Amino acid sequence: MTAPLHEAHPAGPGRALPDTQQGMRRRNLARVMHAVSAQGPLSRAAVASRIGLTRAAVSTLVDELIRSGLLEELGPERPGRRVGRPGSALAVSGHGPAGIGAEVGVDHLAVCAVDLRGEVRARAVRYGANRGRPPEPVIEELAGLVRRVVAEAERAGLWPAGLAVAVPGLVARDARTVVRAPNLDWHDTDLGALLPVEYPLTVGNEANFGALAELWLGDGTPRDFLHVSAEIGIGAAVVVDGALLRGTRGFAGELGHVPVRPDGPKCPCGGRGCLEQYAGEEAVLRAAGLEPGEDRVGLLAGRAAEGDEDVRGALHDAGTALGIALTGAVNLLDPESVVLGGALAGLAPWLLPSLEAELDRRTAGPACPVAVSRLGSEGPLLGAAHSVVRAVLDDPAAVAERA
Amino acid sequence: MTAPLHEAHPAGPGRALPDTQQGMRRRNLARVMHAVSAQGPLSRAAVASRIGLTRAAVSTLVDELIRSGLLEELGPERPGRRVGRPGSALAVSGHGPAGIGAEVGVDHLAVCAVDLRGEVRARAVRYGANRGRPPEPVIEELAGLVRRVVAEAERAGLWPAGLAVAVPGLVARDARTVVRAPNLDWHDTDLGALLPVEYPLTVGNEANFGALAELWLGDGTPRDFLHVSAEIGIGAAVVVDGALLRGTRGFAGELGHVPVRPDGPKCPCGGRGCLEQYAGEEAVLRAAGLEPGEDRVGLLAGRAAEGDEDVRGALHDAGTALGIALTGAVNLLDPESVVLGGALAGLAPWLLPSLEAELDRRTAGPACPVAVSRLGSEGPLLGAAHSVVRAVLDDPAAVAERA
Repeated sequence: MTAPLHEAHPAGPGRALPDTQQGMRRRNLARVMHAVSAQGPLSRAAVASRIGLTRAAVSTLVDELIRSGLLEELGPERPGRRVGRPGSALAVSGHGPAGIGAEVGVDHLAVCAVDLRGEVRARAVRYGANRGRPPEPVIEELAGLVRRVVAEAERAGLWPAGLAVAVPGLVARDARTVVRAPNLDWHDTDLGALLPVEYPLTVGNEANFGALAELWLGDGTPRDFLHVSAEIGIGAAVVVDGALLRGTRGFAGELGHVPVRPDGPKCPCGGRGCLEQYAGEEAVLRAAGLEPGEDRVGLLAGRAAEGDEDVRGALHDAGTALGIALTGAVNLLDPESVVLGGALAGLAPWLLPSLEAELDRRTAGPACPVAVSRLGSEGPLLGAAHSVVRAVLDDPAAVAERA
Repeated sequence: MTAPLHEAHPAGPGRALPDTQQGMRRRNLARVMHAVSAQGPLSRAAVASRIGLTRAAVSTLVDELIRSGLLEELGPERPGRRVGRPGSALAVSGHGPAGIGAEVGVDHLAVCAVDLRGEVRARAVRYGANRGRPPEPVIEELAGLVRRVVAEAERAGLWPAGLAVAVPGLVARDARTVVRAPNLDWHDTDLGALLPVEYPLTVGNEANFGALAELWLGDGTPRDFLHVSAEIGIGAAVVVDGALLRGTRGFAGELGHVPVRPDGPKCPCGGRGCLEQYAGEEAVLRAAGLEPGEDRVGLLAGRAAEGDEDVRGALHDAGTALGIALTGAVNLLDPESVVLGGALAGLAPWLLPSLEAELDRRTAGPACPVAVSRLGSEGPLLGAAHSVVRAVLDDPAAVAERA
């Protein structure tokens, strides 16, 4: 549901850059960065053999990346690892550009800085309900956290290559405008105007950033999967061949409003019997006879763990509804797996049995496997920061020009 | 649900070919072919300006394409259209490679040959029920039709660049094996073994080929749409940014087994209340109190046109079920439009009112527009033949090597 930085930097290794000598150079710079990032430290010779270019060509590219501060030399290799004449091992720089990720949650704000190596180098969180607050003060507070995190990152020798903001709502394809965030009560809010920064800004749906985090940081996540998460609403994101399916307006992934029981209760979206009416946090709390408070998932997980039969029953029914909606989604998309992330990850022990039973009995062949994210509610924030880092790896030349 | 020829010829203008001088040449050959195909006849200068290469570079590429019989010169341009020194207009060849498309229907077999200009140059059809017949005699009959069509094409100066076969079932990603075709009662049938030809063979799902036909030949079809068709089952195909979404196993697009009423009637797929139980041809015939015969759609359309209330009521209910299933699909995929194709196109007048009402009332914003295909049941056959033609345009060098 977002246009992540990949659109602002239209590269991706070997993708959209123009088919010219200059474009080829930029794509090859990206290949070197990706090789060192994925498999480094590597000697120049090892990079050359991995990406299929001559050593001389790779040396020119590497020199350029070292000059712009994206790669660094670790000094001569240890003798034991030497192949051919002694070479210096290359690593992705821990002092160059950093990706700044931010999250506007219903109950918190968070910001972090991630370096090109993927390490979180600075972080700030502020708890407090944002529901019903107008965008201006919320974004002002977020901007304060961003300034703090950027200052800390700068003290560590990093500089911000971009800021990506995850929001719980639909974001237009301009990657700036929050079209609708029902759980914040924001409509047509241009975050670009509210959050002026001197580096590229991308606004995206939190479920999408959560899915990207799973793709990039998850353990053995396939390149085709459906990511289902929840804060108050149900969010989902579709990843196809390692890329987000975003939809014409940027709204793809609205699993929460898939009709589960077409004559069921009315939903604020205008429909009836939508998944959110059965498996949204508030619906589950209601079904369990609990009041919605601040730590809704914690409350549900705690009670379920204690053996509260009402809570367990409510989660069982939510799992059934998720299974029905996912049957439709799996039939349409044929993903390699379904990943439960965000708040749903914490509730998985009580959702999964009925969810999987439902998927199973409605599927002719072997049912699609359901995995549980280990990133949980950290996903959207990490996905946002890493989307900036990936954009740098995908088109290092663009960043070098700004360095 | 198929791996159409685009995988066998892994090109596409500027896509998967290796990033070398040789790869660049191949991509540029494809750009020339696509420019002339889409906008020809064109002079060399006009091609050069359209694809952003120098005239000298384009001339070298054009000469190569003329030598391999993919382009032809129409002779000197008429004086009125002349720009600069007189040039000869270029057109896609009507005598070079042809795409052979074939369709295995439940009630018919069809084969056609389409030249690079997109014209159908030969065609053969045989009516007769294939349901329950083993694959061998059916494919033998199909091979006879293929031979007839190829012979006719050859007499017209064409040669087969490939054969694509549309089947009403799930096809593995090897683009040869029919994993499951319930309405033919075929399982794990390797058509590659049954249909030996001296040119590349691709087997694909008929709904996918129908969607591709709509994409390539439809009138103003967007690049992001959901194509819904029916023969006996309900087929669908998802097109994202001008390409089929195929799914991990090649099975994406199974709209027919999206649960519409989760406690509804049992479906042979193992589920309950699947869309096919409400909107499949046989379900509609049953609901209308009619016997399934050979021309099922013709029967329904005829009765509905005559004002038969039972038939109109059955189609109204089928439209409602389609609307519920499509609400979920539209929420997940955010397509620019839904296109009703295949048999559904002929029934559109009676399906659309309830279908659109259902989509409308279940959608918060403006509902996704629903269009009706003008290709109707010709879609899969044309899509199959054109998939071969597109593969030639996407990588003319591969074909030139075989010419």
